[in-house]
Amino acid sequence: KKNYRIAVLPGDGIGPEIMQEAVKVLTLVGELEGVTFTCEEGRIGGIAIDTDGTPLPEETVTLAKQADAVLLGAVGGPKWDQNPGNLRPETGLLGIRKALGLFANIRPATMHSSLVDASSLKPEVVSGVDLIVVRELTGGIYFGEKKRYDGPNGEVAEDQCIYHEAEVERIIRVGFDIARKRQKRLVSVDKANVLESSRLWRKVAERVAADYPDVELSHQLVDSCAMQLVREPKQFDVIVTENMFGDILSDQAAMLTGSIGMLSSASLAAGSFGLYEPVHGSAPDIAGKGIANPLATILSVAMMLRLSLGMDEAAAAVENAVWSVLEAGHRTGDIAADRSKAIGTIEMGQLVRDEL
Amino acid sequence: KKNYRIAVLPGDGIGPEIMQEAVKVLTLVGELEGVTFTCEEGRIGGIAIDTDGTPLPEETVTLAKQADAVLLGAVGGPKWDQNPGNLRPETGLLGIRKALGLFANIRPATMHSSLVDASSLKPEVVSGVDLIVVRELTGGIYFGEKKRYDGPNGEVAEDQCIYHEAEVERIIRVGFDIARKRQKRLVSVDKANVLESSRLWRKVAERVAADYPDVELSHQLVDSCAMQLVREPKQFDVIVTENMFGDILSDQAAMLTGSIGMLSSASLAAGSFGLYEPVHGSAPDIAGKGIANPLATILSVAMMLRLSLGMDEAAAAVENAVWSVLEAGHRTGDIAADRSKAIGTIEMGQLVRDEL
Ligand SMILES: CC(C)[C@H](C(=O)O)[C@@H](O)C(=O)O
Ligand SMILES: CC(C)[C@H](C(=O)O)[C@@H](O)C(=O)O
Repeated sequence: KKNYRIAVLPGDGIGPEIMQEAVKVLTLVGELEGVTFTCEEGRIGGIAIDTDGTPLPEETVTLAKQADAVLLGAVGGPKWDQNPGNLRPETGLLGIRKALGLFANIRPATMHSSLVDASSLKPEVVSGVDLIVVRELTGGIYFGEKKRYDGPNGEVAEDQCIYHEAEVERIIRVGFDIARKRQKRLVSVDKANVLESSRLWRKVAERVAADYPDVELSHQLVDSCAMQLVREPKQFDVIVTENMFGDILSDQAAMLTGSIGMLSSASLAAGSFGLYEPVHGSAPDIAGKGIANPLATILSVAMMLRLSLGMDEAAAAVENAVWSVLEAGHRTGDIAADRSKAIGTIEMGQLVRDEL
Repeated sequence: KKNYRIAVLPGDGIGPEIMQEAVKVLTLVGELEGVTFTCEEGRIGGIAIDTDGTPLPEETVTLAKQADAVLLGAVGGPKWDQNPGNLRPETGLLGIRKALGLFANIRPATMHSSLVDASSLKPEVVSGVDLIVVRELTGGIYFGEKKRYDGPNGEVAEDQCIYHEAEVERIIRVGFDIARKRQKRLVSVDKANVLESSRLWRKVAERVAADYPDVELSHQLVDSCAMQLVREPKQFDVIVTENMFGDILSDQAAMLTGSIGMLSSASLAAGSFGLYEPVHGSAPDIAGKGIANPLATILSVAMMLRLSLGMDEAAAAVENAVWSVLEAGHRTGDIAADRSKAIGTIEMGQLVRDEL
């Protein structure tokens, strides 16, 4: 009997509640597929700051490295917002990305037909949107050298944005590989009319394109892409871009669907290892109330099954169970048209398992 | 009789056509107000590359410096797209910003009620949107040091993002000054959880806030701001942000209105000097056809009258003339629901002058 080790990092705010439902779904999948998932919990973010004095304990990194994949809830909350940089929850997130070499962030933004009304865009503009943003996650201005010093006219601050050809190449290849399995249209986003790193980016994208003659590559400047995402999001299949632009564009793309409580993401290393998490945050305002939407975390489980464990059918079964529950009209508060009929976190998790 | 010197830089593509209408409006304003506008033409962008071998001839800089304000059409086109950096039209644009010290880019995104249908957002989400993005325009990663060299594993590219306290302070003050004259709500956008330059930015914003107790300051991370602009753009009054984020967010905000052919922008130096231009580009595909929308350029004239020449009433008169023409149902092709009824550039310009 196959055994997979899964590192489970619930994190802060609603993290533990939604993770609980996701783990129950995973356990059920194990029973149905005759596979064992050994889930081992670790701390990250605010809870780790409180318990271990650091947002990313060494223990958590070790746990994650020994696992086949990682499930993450969410990190952060007002309690830690005024902390210095090394004691902030998101430093744990940046740290684990780097420590595990998670260079490829995959963020699908899919408009499920029964949720079209939740979007702030016109139904005809968003219905059918099905795009993926592939974001470089361990380079660029996020991890370049930072400086702060006193100049003749007050303080000066510097951030270095640096990209190596090999770093660009591997993420561009991820973009092409994903596009190849979809509509075969890849838009590489940069700011090549201003940035040197973008000129390198574009050059590498052009070179790698020769290996993917079946995929259509085009380039968009980041400002135009931000416009096009608003104007006609359906034009996109796969977008590949650098870390900072990907942060902005993937959040913008997620919000186009209007139901960010439904979206999950994968952060992949070379090989099959990956970390999976919902796109939404830790929502401290509703933490502990049992009303958070667990579907994005459950869909993260599906992504994990597909991308790290090669269990495509089980992944599809989880996704279909989620769509069926939605089609039957069940909603948590964040996506309910009529909030008085909204169901809770545990109830939603149970409904998905019933469908499975 | 007062005499103002205006440097007119039509640029490329539709630039000359739309500028012609704007200058005619300006001339009429002069007659009505008893003021002389001496308009002197200069070259910038592709036309300057072709004629002078550089996108920003010294002559043009001199002309602009001697003027009271500058009107710009648009630059760029496929003809120059493959040129090396120093021979690209946008290098002229970056150059003139730096040469004239135009550090404050003011980009209003206003949803005019008669154009609500042009937006890809739901009418209830966009109607009433009236926000201004204040973008720092001569610092940050745009003008930091750039490097390109060979490393052990291929090429390496670097862009430095650098901000001095004084640079941050002057743009934050512009944001506060504008907010003070409006709804008194300023959102400062940064990425303080990752970037050192953003941490300086936020610190300076907090310090300067003490001088504006009547204005409510809040901070948003750039990724959240990109989401909030999609979700509920009406929440914003004035946004102030650094160069790269401002490039992306101001274009995103512009596209929310769906009628980018209507939006104008100002780039201001210390004092009253400024450069005024439409937000849209040079649209090479429709250049020379006489169908381009001249309204954004005409509204740029209004911005110039107000911000550089102190002619508030004349500015309002031009704006009102534009709104009247729209309310009477006249549309150029880009904003027409029924394209067969669309009017041309010259006709639109004439209608505005008739209203004036
Ligand atoms: C919390 C923050 C550092 C992080 C990022 O910017 O990468 C977040 O916005 C994300 O997108 O996962
Ligand atoms: C053409 C380009 C260099 C420019 C910029 O990025 O500033 C443009 O996008 C703008 O916003 O005016």
